[in-house]
Amino acid sequence: MAGKFVSKRNCEFLLYEVFDIVSLTKHPYYRQHNKKMFDMILDAALKMGKDLLQPIFEEMDRKQPVLENGKVKVHPSVRTVMKKFGEGGWIAAKFAEEFDGEQLPYLIADCCHFIFSAANYSASVYPGLTSKAARLITSFGSQELIDTYVPRMLNGEWQGTMALTEPQAGSSLADITTTATPADGGYYLIQGQKIFISAGDHDGVDNVVQLMLAKIEGAPAGVRGISLFVVPNLRPEANGKLVSNDITISQIYHKMGYKGSPITELSIGEKNDCRGFLVGEPNKGLSYMFQMMNGSRLSVGAAAAAISTAAYYAALEYARQRPQGRNSKTKDPTTPQIPIIEHADVKRMLLFQRSFAEGAHSLLMQCCRYADLEIVSSGAEKEKAALLLDLLTPVAKSYPSEMSILSTSEAIQIFGGYGYCDDFPVEQHFRDTRIHTIHEGTTGIQGMDLLGRKVRMKEGKAFSLFVEEVRADIQAAAPFENLGPYVERLQQSMDELETVTAQLIRQGQEASSEVYLSDATLYLNYFSLVAVAWQWLLQATAASKALAGSPSKADGHFYQGKLFTARYFFHYELPKTRGLVTRLLDSDRTTLEMQPDYFYD
Amino acid sequence: MAGKFVSKRNCEFLLYEVFDIVSLTKHPYYRQHNKKMFDMILDAALKMGKDLLQPIFEEMDRKQPVLENGKVKVHPSVRTVMKKFGEGGWIAAKFAEEFDGEQLPYLIADCCHFIFSAANYSASVYPGLTSKAARLITSFGSQELIDTYVPRMLNGEWQGTMALTEPQAGSSLADITTTATPADGGYYLIQGQKIFISAGDHDGVDNVVQLMLAKIEGAPAGVRGISLFVVPNLRPEANGKLVSNDITISQIYHKMGYKGSPITELSIGEKNDCRGFLVGEPNKGLSYMFQMMNGSRLSVGAAAAAISTAAYYAALEYARQRPQGRNSKTKDPTTPQIPIIEHADVKRMLLFQRSFAEGAHSLLMQCCRYADLEIVSSGAEKEKAALLLDLLTPVAKSYPSEMSILSTSEAIQIFGGYGYCDDFPVEQHFRDTRIHTIHEGTTGIQGMDLLGRKVRMKEGKAFSLFVEEVRADIQAAAPFENLGPYVERLQQSMDELETVTAQLIRQGQEASSEVYLSDATLYLNYFSLVAVAWQWLLQATAASKALAGSPSKADGHFYQGKLFTARYFFHYELPKTRGLVTRLLDSDRTTLEMQPDYFYD
Repeated sequence: MAGKFVSKRNCEFLLYEVFDIVSLTKHPYYRQHNKKMFDMILDAALKMGKDLLQPIFEEMDRKQPVLENGKVKVHPSVRTVMKKFGEGGWIAAKFAEEFDGEQLPYLIADCCHFIFSAANYSASVYPGLTSKAARLITSFGSQELIDTYVPRMLNGEWQGTMALTEPQAGSSLADITTTATPADGGYYLIQGQKIFISAGDHDGVDNVVQLMLAKIEGAPAGVRGISLFVVPNLRPEANGKLVSNDITISQIYHKMGYKGSPITELSIGEKNDCRGFLVGEPNKGLSYMFQMMNGSRLSVGAAAAAISTAAYYAALEYARQRPQGRNSKTKDPTTPQIPIIEHADVKRMLLFQRSFAEGAHSLLMQCCRYADLEIVSSGAEKEKAALLLDLLTPVAKSYPSEMSILSTSEAIQIFGGYGYCDDFPVEQHFRDTRIHTIHEGTTGIQGMDLLGRKVRMKEGKAFSLFVEEVRADIQAAAPFENLGPYVERLQQSMDELETVTAQLIRQGQEASSEVYLSDATLYLNYFSLVAVAWQWLLQATAASKALAGSPSKADGHFYQGKLFTARYFFHYELPKTRGLVTRLLDSDRTTLEMQPDYFYD
Repeated sequence: MAGKFVSKRNCEFLLYEVFDIVSLTKHPYYRQHNKKMFDMILDAALKMGKDLLQPIFEEMDRKQPVLENGKVKVHPSVRTVMKKFGEGGWIAAKFAEEFDGEQLPYLIADCCHFIFSAANYSASVYPGLTSKAARLITSFGSQELIDTYVPRMLNGEWQGTMALTEPQAGSSLADITTTATPADGGYYLIQGQKIFISAGDHDGVDNVVQLMLAKIEGAPAGVRGISLFVVPNLRPEANGKLVSNDITISQIYHKMGYKGSPITELSIGEKNDCRGFLVGEPNKGLSYMFQMMNGSRLSVGAAAAAISTAAYYAALEYARQRPQGRNSKTKDPTTPQIPIIEHADVKRMLLFQRSFAEGAHSLLMQCCRYADLEIVSSGAEKEKAALLLDLLTPVAKSYPSEMSILSTSEAIQIFGGYGYCDDFPVEQHFRDTRIHTIHEGTTGIQGMDLLGRKVRMKEGKAFSLFVEEVRADIQAAAPFENLGPYVERLQQSMDELETVTAQLIRQGQEASSEVYLSDATLYLNYFSLVAVAWQWLLQATAASKALAGSPSKADGHFYQGKLFTARYFFHYELPKTRGLVTRLLDSDRTTLEMQPDYFYD
């Protein structure tokens, strides 16, 4: 399986033409970079994806991790992956130079990670998690913690994880019971159980560093009593030797997909000898962890879009080569069959996948742009970027995750029976991507985050800023005559989004929070469609600009493809808001009034 | 895994209260049956599902069929299943008494098969296919073919199949190239290759009887040159001995799900010694095969709804037992967590699954009712039943198949991370059900069948009859005050469906068939939502009728549940027609004008 899994041209389009990454290099923090370097980095990432990750995509699925004698054994290539990601500076890509990082903009770093996830999602998780865990230590940890752990994480020798979930506390972190007891020597003794911990142990690295939530004895109940600890599987002694830190891997899970990465259950401190090292201040653990969670949420959204991208290219290639049926005008069975890409319904299925995958990727790049702007700007501009990133995070996590199920499913559909079999990669993409609506906060949680918190925070400031941003981009599109219909539609959609949001908030003030949030998932879905329509208007604007010049024939096709995909989105996807708005403005309370008893017979 | 996978109460509700199966027994053909017998049959089917099929649900997935020395080895229980289904009369359930059949109404026979599919889809396929293949022989085959093959198929000793697909001819049957050469002795020599043949060989039976499409030398090109043959893997000699019939199993496929049933590739007549026995007249094979295909389409839709039903009950059970989070009114972390079934968003996800699964099951029972009415009536009534069945078949095949992907996915979502792991059955349901939009005609094919053929056939007679049927049921619902809002909504939806359909047909007369059919899949989706809303009005009417009496407490809850689920469908699902109508009335031709070149870069 060595087909195309991502489009370099599209990455360039988003980086240079839509989000103008080069403009970031005028800021001091990013001034050491230039377009030529970005080109080289993109090429290097594509090569890494193609030569290192894609070749083991299937094998990592077929030969799952196993737990043997208390140790998790993973595919032997994982060690190579971690080593090369460390050496190549990919784990440290977004870290500041003071940590030996590459200090790359989010835009390019995350675009590269998108490529890795498209090539082989499971493999991309090991370095991705490590990077985010290390970032948490550099952001909130002591210099000693930084010196002890970060260099070996960034060079790929040690794995980083996030250890939050417990059997009784999945979505509800308030209910974690893992305890931390202060001990002499500046550490805490940790005891408890964590489940569903990705890469919680494996033999592709020399150590695993868990970023773990626990409660210090006597801490307040609920989320205000959660602290963050660095808890290594092997703890480094003063002499540099690694000794067991009393973490036992009690099981690994057998999953439907995403099989190349082990998900573990940890028994911590069974001998009361598990040492944890406090990060930052006590009881502030959850607020620290949100840095990693938010980063992970964007990574999950990106991975979902990336997996769908890979499935889309597999389907596209098949559709181009597979002859079946004839044009409905000329049904003559003595004429040769035509490639299925010529059937309108197949084009519709391809445009659906493309409009989703490239629209979602664009939305994620938009988030990266805000992350970059937050870094390089100050004052109101910095706050604005931070608020917009905050507002869009649940959208950028959930829309791709939910739609990726449908999009990879449609890729299977294009293959027909072959798509259901493991001769082609699409069935694995379909299985792999199903995790994304679950981990790092379910879609339901994201909906409550968006409607319950984000659109109302700071008296609706983030939401207002979002409306301003979109309206400014509509203005910028207005001069392009061919975009007239989309300018008008998005304008209407934004008017409607403002009206619906205001009305929901008003209702929410009158009714209980339960009523207000009962259809939060649908609001998230609705908001997402409008946000992605915005991204398509942005892309269509860039394509129209380029077509007004004298693009090469290949570029001309690319830009026409962009315009058609935007057109598809506005004509086929955006209208789905109509049903959602009908529902959201409906005062019916079916789900609240339905009694659990009525489900049984 | 021994949880509830289907609701007996709901089967009874549909059989007795919605579709009044007992009324069929007044007709001579069904007069030997009565309610008591139906009750016993239902109990027997439930027992069979629970004791025989469900216990091997997982095992048949984990231990897939293998091809060893040219022979397909399946789970050892398959032999037991075929034997018990044969002995119990399940394979012969719908056959007339002249064939030693049970002569059961479609309503009860298919409801039982629904139960089997919910318990273990893969296992249910073996007898289901055999029954339909045997039916094809009794309908169109010679007495000799009937005598030779049918008894051993109906008693479960021999497997039946449908052998249509070839590597170059999947959706396009016009392109099959398997040949049939007349030979002395009243048979044909068959040569060719068939792929994706379910149960094309296995050691759970003593022989496999392929109902195979092939072209007799010199036949017209395309579908008008297709003939139907009985082609056994082992052919019975005059002395009763079975000898090889020159069919080689060249491979079995490795599928994402539905793993308990082998899908085979057949090489036929490599030694030019494969004998096929013509069924009916030459060149009429496809029209004969449509009997089996239509039956299979309904079975596929039913299986999709059945799998979703099983997944729904697993999710419901989990939602009732799993504590997580608190009511948003009382977030106090020192209070105990509540079962997730009390969260509005979880109730929404459960109602989504229930409204789909029970709505789709109801639609399939509606089709059964037409099949039964076609049998017992004559003249205009008979024609009406046949036309309605014909019209609804693509809907009853595709809507369940497409929605089952989402519904089983939502079942996984309720389990959170656990749902992605194989400790619970839902991930298997999600994998199993994905086949249904593909086999027996893809969703795209069904859309073209509905819009291109069915709504226009006999000058729109079937469509007009459908409108009449629904309007009559709306009338019947009108006296129930509580149903007022739904009566009104369905009325509006029917008005709109008529308008949209008429407008599309008008456009189709002006434009090319390619334009007319370009959004046929969306029309199918749209039509389906209205058709299922009709089924929910029917069910709500029956529930309201029952509630007006003095139901027991348990029955009261059941009927209230029905009313809430209907309410959910009208408030959450039916509004989805709004976006679809917007699109269907949009004269934009994105998918037709999109050029294949624009997909590449």
